[in-house]
Amino acid sequence: MAKARKELTKPFLVPEGKGFNLGKIDPDETLGFRSKEKAEDLLAEGVKRLTELQDKLYAQDHWALLLIFQAMDAAGKDSTIEHVMSGVNPQGCQVFSFKGPSAEELDHDFLWRTSRCLPERGRIGIFNRSYYEEVLVVRVHPAFLAKQKIPRKLVGKDIWKERFEDINAYERYLTRNGVAIRKFFLHVSKEEQKRRFLARLAEPDKNWKFSAADLGERDHWEAYMEAYEDMIQHTSTRHAPWLVVPADHKWFTRLVVAQAVIEALESLDLAYPVVSEEQQAELLACKKKLEAEK
Amino acid sequence: MAKARKELTKPFLVPEGKGFNLGKIDPDETLGFRSKEKAEDLLAEGVKRLTELQDKLYAQDHWALLLIFQAMDAAGKDSTIEHVMSGVNPQGCQVFSFKGPSAEELDHDFLWRTSRCLPERGRIGIFNRSYYEEVLVVRVHPAFLAKQKIPRKLVGKDIWKERFEDINAYERYLTRNGVAIRKFFLHVSKEEQKRRFLARLAEPDKNWKFSAADLGERDHWEAYMEAYEDMIQHTSTRHAPWLVVPADHKWFTRLVVAQAVIEALESLDLAYPVVSEEQQAELLACKKKLEAEK
Repeated sequence: MAKARKELTKPFLVPEGKGFNLGKIDPDETLGFRSKEKAEDLLAEGVKRLTELQDKLYAQDHWALLLIFQAMDAAGKDSTIEHVMSGVNPQGCQVFSFKGPSAEELDHDFLWRTSRCLPERGRIGIFNRSYYEEVLVVRVHPAFLAKQKIPRKLVGKDIWKERFEDINAYERYLTRNGVAIRKFFLHVSKEEQKRRFLARLAEPDKNWKFSAADLGERDHWEAYMEAYEDMIQHTSTRHAPWLVVPADHKWFTRLVVAQAVIEALESLDLAYPVVSEEQQAELLACKKKLEAEK
Repeated sequence: MAKARKELTKPFLVPEGKGFNLGKIDPDETLGFRSKEKAEDLLAEGVKRLTELQDKLYAQDHWALLLIFQAMDAAGKDSTIEHVMSGVNPQGCQVFSFKGPSAEELDHDFLWRTSRCLPERGRIGIFNRSYYEEVLVVRVHPAFLAKQKIPRKLVGKDIWKERFEDINAYERYLTRNGVAIRKFFLHVSKEEQKRRFLARLAEPDKNWKFSAADLGERDHWEAYMEAYEDMIQHTSTRHAPWLVVPADHKWFTRLVVAQAVIEALESLDLAYPVVSEEQQAELLACKKKLEAEK
């Protein structure tokens, strides 16, 4: 089983962005898995392993793991985070969702609001959307860029190249300081998005998840795909790779994401802290003192 | 007078760090100014100009200016900030002092705590000490690095080079996003520090400014000077230059710093926002409505 899990991420990991072609990854892909049931067994096994690793991460308190999720609407970001991280001790996991920036946030550089939310050592941090919106929605809608109040002479034709460069340098800096990074683009097809939107409209309990604005973004599908592809080409690096995860089958998406998180944690030298002889002597003294209490 | 002011910064500005030699700048330098009185007139004039510029910065609300102060103890950081920024509207000026990091701060990457305090657009932000402590005190005292809980395999012989590189990339990113940066090393001599320490010990009202730890740092003077020189060589860049300001005469230090801040603001395209014709029509309508009130 463990072996089977390890085949799950390779086809979707982009170790170097240059030359990446989004068209090569089929949103409908399931790597031969046919039934949701078998996948669910495997996921349960993965979540168990993840929980063990996270406990060590927390105890060791040196590394942090940052997971970034980006996707079109209804690709399953929320439910993937829910299902993959469900077994993890919430004290060791910090999830932040980033919507449209506030006036205060617009008054700062674009990394400011997410920097504040970076995971502490020993924690898994999850960004549901992130600073990558700066090269996605902001790129597709130039009006958003105008709203950012950046001095005009700094906004030139190289702005996206500069942002890619700045993001890469920032992520290299973070990894140097003990924050391991994995980035997930949940790749859903336009057809599947339509089905999920219609489902949200059909079920009263799901209505809240739908907004007319989502439909507006759908009109820009091609522009978004181009922006995603360019982003992955420029920001998938060895130290902070993107995984382009097929997202037409939610159960498959979860499986791949869980395995990628496990592999990221396994790549760190996680271990429970070793108690020194001195500390052991101290612990022994504590034990004696407690036992001697009347 | 304005012309005289402009000669004040050039000898101390380090537009490119490579090859910089700290020994070339005399802490006792005053560029021929002999009397404190004359300097004070010039400073008053400078502060007035600074106040005008800051008002435009605030009104335009696009640029921010970050001023970083680093120095040995008793070099005059606090008093320089006080005297240079005294005329400025406090609403447009945000000062943060960074002491030893807290446990929460050590749980993050080293830029985390200062990033949260970056100035908003339209503001002047002042860092009294900063992330540069990471290549100064932390370098002089390797025990501090050990305390940072960075995974051990990431702490190698290149760590200072990596930190310089990360800081440069970070400052380039900030300037690209509208944060202009000037960095000041207030360069005091070891002899003058001794005089000031003795003064603090002699005057009861100044005793609070002295701590035995300051004397401990004095023992590492040479190591600090080497760390400062190396830092300036590697992080003085066109977009975020260091100014090495002679600091044996406080009145001279203030004059140079004030002028450097003025020049930084003058290099931006500051202007009061222009009211469009549409807005003017709106303002006129408001005026009429108010006048029509019974």
